[in-house]
Amino acid sequence: MPNRVGQLWDRPGCRTSYRTEPPSPTSVQTLDDGLALRATLERDRPRHAVIVGAGYIGLELAEAFCAWGIAVTVIERASTPMATLDADMGAMLVESMQSFGMTLRLGETVTGFDTGAGGVRAVITDQRTVPTDLVVLGLGVRPNTALAHAAGIPLGPTGAMAVDQRMRTGAEGVWAGGDCVEKFHRVSRRPVTIALGTHANKEGRTAGINIGGGYATFPGVVGTAVTKICDIEVGRTGLGEAAAEAAGFSALSVAVDSTTRAGYYPGAKPIRTKLVAERGTGRLLGAQIIGQEGAAKRIDVLAVALWHETTVEDLLNIDLSYAPPFSPLWGPVLIAARKSWQRIEADRHPSPAPRTTGH
Amino acid sequence: MPNRVGQLWDRPGCRTSYRTEPPSPTSVQTLDDGLALRATLERDRPRHAVIVGAGYIGLELAEAFCAWGIAVTVIERASTPMATLDADMGAMLVESMQSFGMTLRLGETVTGFDTGAGGVRAVITDQRTVPTDLVVLGLGVRPNTALAHAAGIPLGPTGAMAVDQRMRTGAEGVWAGGDCVEKFHRVSRRPVTIALGTHANKEGRTAGINIGGGYATFPGVVGTAVTKICDIEVGRTGLGEAAAEAAGFSALSVAVDSTTRAGYYPGAKPIRTKLVAERGTGRLLGAQIIGQEGAAKRIDVLAVALWHETTVEDLLNIDLSYAPPFSPLWGPVLIAARKSWQRIEADRHPSPAPRTTGH
Repeated sequence: MPNRVGQLWDRPGCRTSYRTEPPSPTSVQTLDDGLALRATLERDRPRHAVIVGAGYIGLELAEAFCAWGIAVTVIERASTPMATLDADMGAMLVESMQSFGMTLRLGETVTGFDTGAGGVRAVITDQRTVPTDLVVLGLGVRPNTALAHAAGIPLGPTGAMAVDQRMRTGAEGVWAGGDCVEKFHRVSRRPVTIALGTHANKEGRTAGINIGGGYATFPGVVGTAVTKICDIEVGRTGLGEAAAEAAGFSALSVAVDSTTRAGYYPGAKPIRTKLVAERGTGRLLGAQIIGQEGAAKRIDVLAVALWHETTVEDLLNIDLSYAPPFSPLWGPVLIAARKSWQRIEADRHPSPAPRTTGH
Repeated sequence: MPNRVGQLWDRPGCRTSYRTEPPSPTSVQTLDDGLALRATLERDRPRHAVIVGAGYIGLELAEAFCAWGIAVTVIERASTPMATLDADMGAMLVESMQSFGMTLRLGETVTGFDTGAGGVRAVITDQRTVPTDLVVLGLGVRPNTALAHAAGIPLGPTGAMAVDQRMRTGAEGVWAGGDCVEKFHRVSRRPVTIALGTHANKEGRTAGINIGGGYATFPGVVGTAVTKICDIEVGRTGLGEAAAEAAGFSALSVAVDSTTRAGYYPGAKPIRTKLVAERGTGRLLGAQIIGQEGAAKRIDVLAVALWHETTVEDLLNIDLSYAPPFSPLWGPVLIAARKSWQRIEADRHPSPAPRTTGH
């Protein structure tokens, strides 16, 4: 079986230094591109694939290859997969991926490809050479602002187009939405670029209503995202530890282990919930969840809490649903909120030094 | 196989006119009671059971009997199961239960029991006689206030003990929490009685902190609850249509059908989401969800939204997580919010009469 031409998994607007290096690169941006990649798998039955980049796209491809019985190596320049996860949560994800037989090469930079007749034979990093039958690049995205640049439409500090809440650009009569525009982050209060269809759709709705003479606003995002790799679900919203500090918050975080159902109920699965909160005020700044089936979608509870600038003290009393098939009595979110509040309180009122017990 | 002694499923504080009617009634309030009921099933292998009352407890018992292969008839005085569901959502639940072979007798009142040597042989209603091997009563609960009454502790308008947000009763130095106290409903702004462990636990925590010299408050409930019957999940929060009207709101409701995952993703299950919102303001007043696996716990998103007095206009833009294994791009909650907002807007600005097309 001959080695295959390297496949390029890329998304609109992506520009990377790797883009033109593999011979005959094929992008995988459309359904047809996906079908072409699947046809390659069916025809050539590669035994090993390398994915460069451990973002959402890279990880979802890793799951798909795993399901095809293809040995997967994921190479990522950063020290953890999924840039928006804190290191401790990322480490749990790594363990889970390894348990499915995937190889992760973290903190490694791809420096080139060993190419032969018609395809890539190996991926070369700053630390090793990884022989492979197939390469997929999932290197992240940048806003495609070529048209905006050509038209003289102002860009914001992130490099994406600046728009107001009605999705109006700086050019009269020009609206924009999607990956090419900045979003307002409601926790950091800063413009950000996040390339997600759920934002793009809401922005499109908003722009369309306004273009049609109506009135609608898109009030921003809190950075919610969710993904699944094999049986591991990951959700995140708001600011991670580093982003919280970068946004000027002094943050405390707490992670708690619980189960998706009452412990005694059949099918209870592990779930770890991490909350990042502001010292002093206890304001919720962000949350991350890793667990098995039924875990990650709970991130939405924390997304709504963030949307409303909830404190962890308020959150611990919120009337979330309980029944044994759905949650322990104190569910994961409530336990995390309670422990987070205890940390915030202890931080505000440090205990006096413990008394000595002798007389 | 002899007919069995009627079993009484009851909860603390329950007082009903049926309580002492069956011979040798056995209550099922504790784990040991549950084990005793199971021992009865194992020993006598009843073929048919009647459950009187279609509340949470009755329905959960119906599921358990179904799993035992016992033919179940549920008799309920009201016209829909689960008093806190609107009629349209209740009807969906009835259909689902019937699809599992359960018989529901709604709008029927139990008037007596046909008892023989050692047990109940049939349940007599105002419409028929239902032969059975076993009877379970799940007739709801009332606050147990005997001790409070004896001690002269003031009760509130609901008949439960009145407490403040720190869980202090009207008697100096006496705190209370759990099914025996009123809760403050944050949507209706009225005291209510709701007998749920999740409230009781939070109240206990609050009382304990205050009794110990600390400071904590329990800020009330929004009436969130969740249950599962066979493969049907049901969640509800806030006010239903009737409760909204009773609380003085003029309400509009919208129900939308969607799926728990993207339609093309394996394992996508049906989910119906109903929102009740206030005319004019669009304020969310309540929500109900019925669906299959992965459906009902989403009610928590709406519970947090209710907690913060969100409008459906605000809700439709909230940054909920999206990925194909977890939701369609416009997820069920967002679609329901969007349609609800369209209804509210149409109600506020009625269209002019359609123009005739002829000239």
